[in-house]
Amino acid sequence: MLKRVQDLEKLAKQTKAKTMAVVFAQDEFVIEAVMRAAEIGVVKPILIGDLEKIESYLPKHHDLKIVNQAEPDLAAKAAMDMVNSGEAEIVMKGLIDTKVLLKAVVNKEYGIRNQKLLSHVGIVSYPDFDRVLFATDGAMNIEPSVEDKILIIENAVKLARAIGYIEPKVGIVSAVEKVNDKILSTVHAQAILDYYKNNEPKGFLIDGPFAIDNLVSQESVIHKGLEGPVAGKADILLFPNLDAGNVFYKTSVFLARGLSAGVIIGAKVPIVLTSRADSAEAKLYSILLAVVSQHGLLATDN
Amino acid sequence: MLKRVQDLEKLAKQTKAKTMAVVFAQDEFVIEAVMRAAEIGVVKPILIGDLEKIESYLPKHHDLKIVNQAEPDLAAKAAMDMVNSGEAEIVMKGLIDTKVLLKAVVNKEYGIRNQKLLSHVGIVSYPDFDRVLFATDGAMNIEPSVEDKILIIENAVKLARAIGYIEPKVGIVSAVEKVNDKILSTVHAQAILDYYKNNEPKGFLIDGPFAIDNLVSQESVIHKGLEGPVAGKADILLFPNLDAGNVFYKTSVFLARGLSAGVIIGAKVPIVLTSRADSAEAKLYSILLAVVSQHGLLATDN
Repeated sequence: MLKRVQDLEKLAKQTKAKTMAVVFAQDEFVIEAVMRAAEIGVVKPILIGDLEKIESYLPKHHDLKIVNQAEPDLAAKAAMDMVNSGEAEIVMKGLIDTKVLLKAVVNKEYGIRNQKLLSHVGIVSYPDFDRVLFATDGAMNIEPSVEDKILIIENAVKLARAIGYIEPKVGIVSAVEKVNDKILSTVHAQAILDYYKNNEPKGFLIDGPFAIDNLVSQESVIHKGLEGPVAGKADILLFPNLDAGNVFYKTSVFLARGLSAGVIIGAKVPIVLTSRADSAEAKLYSILLAVVSQHGLLATDN
Repeated sequence: MLKRVQDLEKLAKQTKAKTMAVVFAQDEFVIEAVMRAAEIGVVKPILIGDLEKIESYLPKHHDLKIVNQAEPDLAAKAAMDMVNSGEAEIVMKGLIDTKVLLKAVVNKEYGIRNQKLLSHVGIVSYPDFDRVLFATDGAMNIEPSVEDKILIIENAVKLARAIGYIEPKVGIVSAVEKVNDKILSTVHAQAILDYYKNNEPKGFLIDGPFAIDNLVSQESVIHKGLEGPVAGKADILLFPNLDAGNVFYKTSVFLARGLSAGVIIGAKVPIVLTSRADSAEAKLYSILLAVVSQHGLLATDN
């Protein structure tokens, strides 16, 4: 169990440095985070993009590999080719439009998707809470169906197991604990549990629906008289939809002063897709999360 | 502007003590909160319910008014009658099913609803944030329509103005800042803004859609290049639906260690509707919020 997002640094240093293709690297803050990750020895970056602009953000003497490609589509394709050839073990988004990068990821000819669905998994730790929480999906999937949610769960479980969780506890988030026909998230929760009654979950526990308090507070669980292995002890929170997941992630970072990291799962390699609003720290930790998960993801895939 | 939920105590003490009908008061924690509020002199409670049970939670010598009524429907009706006669200025839910109480509130003969829609407004303050945030609606309205959301906004504005905000800033919450046909919360945000183009907002400012960071963090607003009077400075957060609002409220309390209070607005008097999971502190602050708002709500109604 990961206690703090900061612990990713120690874990990352225990693995072999990973090659990372940065698509459209010509961004001051992206380069800053990549350089920090390279300095601590956990990634070997390949910076793809506008050579002149990239070099303007780098010190005069550096040993970073740069691939000059000023066309966004072609820069994204170059990264996919590197993954397919084994040259890149992680992909990171730079100053390229997210849509352009993801279009390349799912391209049927040269894309790198290896699951039916790509999803974002964020992890957050708090100044005053005993463990890291995995939140999915507050960044990619807008209104996932029950089938989508099952894939989102399995992507998050794959990530958690890749970074060392033996049996992560998945809690299905709603506003209430009772199934109510008028609250879609509870109906979905019931359908997901029904699915796992017929298809035993492999390497994780799952329960729901729960409001947030009954996933993170033993006191609330006792108050409510709830039972089971997930109540009060969840590791992975499955959110009803993009809005609710995003509210959780942003509230955690901007009001709860949490530390966060995030990656996209569902492709052959982890994809680091930070946003401008992420701090340099959050960008670095997202790279570290990709590094730590990459080895485990390969292991569980094969 | 309220900096901390704790500041409600000082404000409440400045007003005349309010009579408060507690429906089915036979609950240890409800009585504890009511007694504390009575001790600091801000409410005069009328405890409605099972006399014997109520007295079992009270000291032998007390001067609290008790109305013996062991039937839930009739206990709720008794409270409504007290509001209609002017005997009660606040209603508080005790050990009664929320549905039974609300059925009485909206009853056409003796009910006390005075707006088309009842909604919950929570307020939260954080250990490390400069102001209180109003969150609506994370407790009552499941999937509000655009029309419902306009009423929810106006209920929250009424509350904020009643406790002293001259021109509260309302931010419409989503996961993103751009209107996207696939994200209903952004489509609703646009429709709400369009409505207020034709119906000038009275005594408040409104803008959206915004993700949480761009409602509470000036740094994020600058990063994103956003403008306007609400970005980064919101007082009232309008959530897309029950799930998202509930996630915000619970994350604020249980992970961000926020202090909270909440009331239902849309009836002739504020309704205090705390849940078992609320701490004694949260229950007390909800009573104080009702006390402080009650005077102002009357003023704005007339």
